[in-house]
Amino acid sequence: MDVETFRKAGYAAIDAICDYYKSMDSLPVMAQVEPGFLRKSIPEEAPEKGEEWNVIAKDYQEKILPGITHWQHPNFHAYFPSNTTFEGMLADLHASSVSNPGFNWSVSPSVTELELITLDWTAKMFGLSQDFYTTSERGGSIILNSASEVAITVAVAAREKILATMENKNEVSIKQTQIEDVAYWRGNATSKLVMYGTTQTHSIGVKAAMVLGLQFRAIEVEGKDRFGLRGDALRKALKEDQEKGLVPFMLIATIGTTSSGAVDRLDEIEEVTKDYPDLWIHVDAAYAGVCLALPEMRSTCYLDVINRKVDSFSTNLHKWGLVTFDCSPLYVRQRADLSNALTVTPQYLRTKQGDANSALDLRNMQLSLGRRFRSLKVWFTLRSYGQEGFRRHLRNGIELSQTFNELIATQRAPLKIVTPPQWSLTVFRLEPAGMKDEKELDTLNRRFWDELQTRSDAILLTQTILPEIGFCIRFVVGTPSSKESHIEKAYDIICQIALKVLQDAQ
Amino acid sequence: MDVETFRKAGYAAIDAICDYYKSMDSLPVMAQVEPGFLRKSIPEEAPEKGEEWNVIAKDYQEKILPGITHWQHPNFHAYFPSNTTFEGMLADLHASSVSNPGFNWSVSPSVTELELITLDWTAKMFGLSQDFYTTSERGGSIILNSASEVAITVAVAAREKILATMENKNEVSIKQTQIEDVAYWRGNATSKLVMYGTTQTHSIGVKAAMVLGLQFRAIEVEGKDRFGLRGDALRKALKEDQEKGLVPFMLIATIGTTSSGAVDRLDEIEEVTKDYPDLWIHVDAAYAGVCLALPEMRSTCYLDVINRKVDSFSTNLHKWGLVTFDCSPLYVRQRADLSNALTVTPQYLRTKQGDANSALDLRNMQLSLGRRFRSLKVWFTLRSYGQEGFRRHLRNGIELSQTFNELIATQRAPLKIVTPPQWSLTVFRLEPAGMKDEKELDTLNRRFWDELQTRSDAILLTQTILPEIGFCIRFVVGTPSSKESHIEKAYDIICQIALKVLQDAQ
Repeated sequence: MDVETFRKAGYAAIDAICDYYKSMDSLPVMAQVEPGFLRKSIPEEAPEKGEEWNVIAKDYQEKILPGITHWQHPNFHAYFPSNTTFEGMLADLHASSVSNPGFNWSVSPSVTELELITLDWTAKMFGLSQDFYTTSERGGSIILNSASEVAITVAVAAREKILATMENKNEVSIKQTQIEDVAYWRGNATSKLVMYGTTQTHSIGVKAAMVLGLQFRAIEVEGKDRFGLRGDALRKALKEDQEKGLVPFMLIATIGTTSSGAVDRLDEIEEVTKDYPDLWIHVDAAYAGVCLALPEMRSTCYLDVINRKVDSFSTNLHKWGLVTFDCSPLYVRQRADLSNALTVTPQYLRTKQGDANSALDLRNMQLSLGRRFRSLKVWFTLRSYGQEGFRRHLRNGIELSQTFNELIATQRAPLKIVTPPQWSLTVFRLEPAGMKDEKELDTLNRRFWDELQTRSDAILLTQTILPEIGFCIRFVVGTPSSKESHIEKAYDIICQIALKVLQDAQ
Repeated sequence: MDVETFRKAGYAAIDAICDYYKSMDSLPVMAQVEPGFLRKSIPEEAPEKGEEWNVIAKDYQEKILPGITHWQHPNFHAYFPSNTTFEGMLADLHASSVSNPGFNWSVSPSVTELELITLDWTAKMFGLSQDFYTTSERGGSIILNSASEVAITVAVAAREKILATMENKNEVSIKQTQIEDVAYWRGNATSKLVMYGTTQTHSIGVKAAMVLGLQFRAIEVEGKDRFGLRGDALRKALKEDQEKGLVPFMLIATIGTTSSGAVDRLDEIEEVTKDYPDLWIHVDAAYAGVCLALPEMRSTCYLDVINRKVDSFSTNLHKWGLVTFDCSPLYVRQRADLSNALTVTPQYLRTKQGDANSALDLRNMQLSLGRRFRSLKVWFTLRSYGQEGFRRHLRNGIELSQTFNELIATQRAPLKIVTPPQWSLTVFRLEPAGMKDEKELDTLNRRFWDELQTRSDAILLTQTILPEIGFCIRFVVGTPSSKESHIEKAYDIICQIALKVLQDAQ
């Protein structure tokens, strides 16, 4: 495609996206297709000769778009939101026009520098301590692609740190001449390490442990504590494991769990860690962390403890934070913890600036070598919305969530909110008067869920299972285009289905 | 930004990219800025109120672009190419407009299905065996973000596979009731595992081992073998390690090393593995793998061995393969090896289709949960170029590389090609007649390199160190816009600098 063909194709793509957003409300939220649908309309091989752009562009509209589940639809209430903005699209467009793998400062200085600047911007917006700024002496930050990548990356850094501590304490010596002996010591030491979370911690915790071959212990939490980790439960687990000769090395504390928006008690965790100074505390606030931008939310998120104590903190701007996927900022108190664990520099990756230590090479703070130019979408979005607009977007989601909760309170159908709503997440289930048997309720709610899925064209929700409660439905708000009318529509449909399921059950 | 503002902003962005490409030839290849340049012109905090789009768009041009190293410049000869195309930009634009985290089939069916279809397209284009097609019974493929992520992902799968084999062989039993005992066994077993590569394997190998806490052994290779791994050297290393009680579990064999384009002798490796059937063979063909699209290159790349023997194969379409960064397809002979090692499914990630096993959920074949819609750029690019255009692009790079080699042969300056050029990569150094002392040559070539870097505005190259040879310069072709005149210009500058350095040295 030459430059002038691109100009025309580009204008047309922009127009198509405008049409897409204008018609969003009328599209089915979830793609109404069956597995294997796409193979039927696409040839088995790439064409031998190049095709005309118009044909390709038309196929995108006719073949691909119907298979897209529209996460930007105002009635998308499933999982967590995956916001995108026009600003983010323009950023991705520019980033792909200057495509480069950004691993060292010199391979595109703006990629590294804008990342560090915008991460200081968000640190300030969230009220994070200066200790986490890249401009601080020791702290640092980086944009990774997902909370999963963050969990693995932090776990590698925490593992290397505790192994070094174990060696320093002379529990063992790895100053051997044979690499096998070092490996043997490492293997044994590593087998003692335990990563902690709760039964409510996102599966990224278990997966990080699986990937690294480490033990993960999921501590039980209770409904009376709104499913947040308490200090006593943590202390008990740490003590039990230490008595078995195990070494607690990392806790993933969550602010805003996926199932119910639960918040681990960072205040109590801080107390416990006074007796466990080597325990790395990572705060996973993938969904809710953006709420730190709201002063009224900071105490609920234990900002003071984050600033005083935690070793690393991460939130996903690509969820409720208006930045197009992918964008998972990670903040660490000691950037050397990452670079000590992740730096390998063969000759062909050396640069003047890297050798002179005059610039940070971000490859040394992540698993991969190459990296996309992700900060551009943060910069475009924050400048265009302003901090004010960012806060307005979050408050709008919270208010719409309250609207939903108020609608549930009208009891047009016997829906019950099962745990106090958090931010823009409500967890509820069908609980008809008089039905107390848990098995019966579970069966009823699974049927309710099956029926809700048949209306995935109109509203999309997801399910979960909560301890002590069982099967429930999650309802999340957060798409920028959602309005009160969409929440009312969603509630209407949920009620209709609830009443139908109850009627069928009689 | 509302829809109509986006329309205008979008048109303007497209125009700006057209201007960028039209002026590319006149831009400095490497950004001519100093570390810290960007902080000087960007406020310390995000603006409180949103800013006008025009101001932001102007700042992108005036503040960000001068800090970009232009990897699309026709005189970019450093590292490996990082191709982008207009088709890829349009794909990224569309992908960010339907932004979603794509982890399960149902969260956007087109994301999963188009990925599997386009990966079968490239498998066919590369002549890969049907065993690797997703439509095969056991094989599979996925697009990951980088060769590094591929190496870690494959290593996790290979590790779990060998641990299961070790357990099955009754070398140990992990059927314990205590999780600590399992962990102890795993720790010990894991400490015995050795991953292999050569001194020329990309640092992604060492890094994958570091991340996973595994041993990596770099086998020596020799100039007489063009720095490719020979069967005897591999056999010797495996035998030595086994005699020490270690367990060889994975070899990263390279087709086209970064330093010199070396090719490990897959034919001999295949022979060796007859005695080591549990050794996972991963082929990292990040740069050169795309050349499998050229029938005349297939035997050099040992396609027959890849198809008969190797467990996994990966190339980066985002290097020389015309697809905008990031796009690293990974092919595996047994997709279950990935999903056995990487599947975790909490309730909130369950879906009808996943439960029914009627669709693949790609999260179970990768480290992260969320994933971008990367296949769209493969689809747009392959359709627009056709297989014919894809091959033409590669052959053009190879021809231009030959032009460079022919220019060196004119000996306008005493430049010597130090190892046979491979594909579009030439490694050379300054070797004036009569200078035989290796230290002297090394010093001379480091000075040569320092001087070459002063012309990074005009041409960009990178350096390496080769065994038996020492410090050398790499010259790579592969940007779609490179023409013979650019190669001549590059050679002119290199000669000028070479002659200057020689004169200064006298």
